[in-house]
Amino acid sequence: MARPDPKPSEGEDAFTRLAALVAPELAAVDRTIRERMASEHAPRIPELSAHLIEAGGKRLRPVLTLAAAKLCGYEGDHQVKLAAAVEFIHTATLLHDDVVDESAKRRGRPTANILFGNQQSVLVGDYLFARSFRLMVETGSLRVLDILADASAVIAEGEVLQLTAQHDLSGGEPRYFQVIRGKTAALFAAAAEVGGVVAGAEEAKVAALRDYGDALGIAFQLIDDFLDYGGSAAAMGKNVGDDFREGKATLPVLIAHAEGDAEERAFWSRVIEEHEQEEGDLAAALRLFARHDALGRTRQRAEDWAARAVAALEVFPDSEMKRALADIAEFVVARGR
Amino acid sequence: MARPDPKPSEGEDAFTRLAALVAPELAAVDRTIRERMASEHAPRIPELSAHLIEAGGKRLRPVLTLAAAKLCGYEGDHQVKLAAAVEFIHTATLLHDDVVDESAKRRGRPTANILFGNQQSVLVGDYLFARSFRLMVETGSLRVLDILADASAVIAEGEVLQLTAQHDLSGGEPRYFQVIRGKTAALFAAAAEVGGVVAGAEEAKVAALRDYGDALGIAFQLIDDFLDYGGSAAAMGKNVGDDFREGKATLPVLIAHAEGDAEERAFWSRVIEEHEQEEGDLAAALRLFARHDALGRTRQRAEDWAARAVAALEVFPDSEMKRALADIAEFVVARGR
Repeated sequence: MARPDPKPSEGEDAFTRLAALVAPELAAVDRTIRERMASEHAPRIPELSAHLIEAGGKRLRPVLTLAAAKLCGYEGDHQVKLAAAVEFIHTATLLHDDVVDESAKRRGRPTANILFGNQQSVLVGDYLFARSFRLMVETGSLRVLDILADASAVIAEGEVLQLTAQHDLSGGEPRYFQVIRGKTAALFAAAAEVGGVVAGAEEAKVAALRDYGDALGIAFQLIDDFLDYGGSAAAMGKNVGDDFREGKATLPVLIAHAEGDAEERAFWSRVIEEHEQEEGDLAAALRLFARHDALGRTRQRAEDWAARAVAALEVFPDSEMKRALADIAEFVVARGR
Repeated sequence: MARPDPKPSEGEDAFTRLAALVAPELAAVDRTIRERMASEHAPRIPELSAHLIEAGGKRLRPVLTLAAAKLCGYEGDHQVKLAAAVEFIHTATLLHDDVVDESAKRRGRPTANILFGNQQSVLVGDYLFARSFRLMVETGSLRVLDILADASAVIAEGEVLQLTAQHDLSGGEPRYFQVIRGKTAALFAAAAEVGGVVAGAEEAKVAALRDYGDALGIAFQLIDDFLDYGGSAAAMGKNVGDDFREGKATLPVLIAHAEGDAEERAFWSRVIEEHEQEEGDLAAALRLFARHDALGRTRQRAEDWAARAVAALEVFPDSEMKRALADIAEFVVARGR
């Protein structure tokens, strides 16, 4: 709204600043990830997971865990194992997503399923998922296991819901938010929450961290869905219009559909619900987005959720870490500018 | 061996007797499975898992957990959750296996991936896996989580190893046993072991249960690989010669290959390693098996492992449950008669 627009580089700086505040722990996470990827019996496993884990991902989710623990004054080292576990769950999800989506590119590189086949993507995902639970067990905290097992179930539910409802416009925004809460926000929320839990923080702070992660994850996914139409392939490392071609009912489509006249609704019904597309449909979709400001309104929703993430941190006293966590919400939405 | 050959029906009776000894707990496991399959957000999930879970599987693994706990004198109810968790892990593995194997039939019915698509099989497997960890968390035992997380990782490793080495005869029997220990015996071993752990049994008994499950699982897989060539499609509920057509280096092939002359080895190299098969090759393979008694020797190995399973139970005093667990080893190899 009235907030000044930061330049994209300010957003990048925000992530760099946050990561710098947990630099030693993050280096330990990287070491743990490399150690625990290793498989005694199946040497191909680290080769495949390394393809993803070393592909320059931002480690946003593990950084959340490390930062949340530090914000709560934690001085132990269990947050390192938890952060590695969170990254393993995320990587397992990516491996399985690529099989499910049949996508060919991620982070600008061919996806693992294209390079190694669906079979290995499924199994290595399973391996990393199992290894993540092993890491959690080592922290000795049943509550942490409960939170991350629950998040893992909710992620799978979100993906199944997305799959069964992906061409269906009738669920509207409520179902859209149900899907993205599952497939994206659940792990952000759990990543932040377990940082508070491992630190033994009071319940109000643990709940605040969960709310922060949830809102941040929703903002993140809204921008992702915005960028699928609004970004350039180079910036995103994936193809523009993928969601459109797959007939996904993301928020820009739902807004344009809800606001459209009968002719426009017939267009959306054909390209999304019946998934019958022809040359020029993507351009037509972009014209309809412009007519209803569907992309601008999607980005605005992302900014609103980012503001909710910042507000959730109110319970914490001012600190450099708190400011860095607030700024990261800016980083997330800055990807959309 | 000097052991008398039981009729197949005696084997079935052995399982029925064992299941009867834990009937109330097994009914509770079924209730728990139905409750925990339910997904608030994705109603398709129970539909898909029910296809597998209610397909008349023997619940062999959860029965092991229940029987092991009872053998150790356990009188609580945590074994029910553990047994349900074990069955969820097994079902998740089946769902992912069917995607990996691209198989079209299981237990005589079309596989879930054929009915529902690979995408949902992957995601519902993930969901069940996550739900299994939630069940384990509720028992409050970190050791149980450790054992089952480790088994899950070993299962995935075994499957990856099988995939990367499936057309390779050079690994011989050592690699074959490494693969089946992972993909099959690991969960049998863990299922029995956690029954002892939840009962608070002394370490020698816990180790004995683990050894029992390991040996039983190996016998089980040996018979499975025997039946792929030796059983009838009706008895197995799957297609005969599947392993051959997929070019899998199972034990009968490894025995015939190791004992074969140059011409025979060239045959195995073509049909397994190069995976180039033509009309009549399966019949030729069966003739070579007969020449070297490869199927008989595979079944004999299964019987040896079944005897090891029985021997592992020595540490326990005589009881009806101990005898039923010993008889179950007969049940497993009786499938091969």
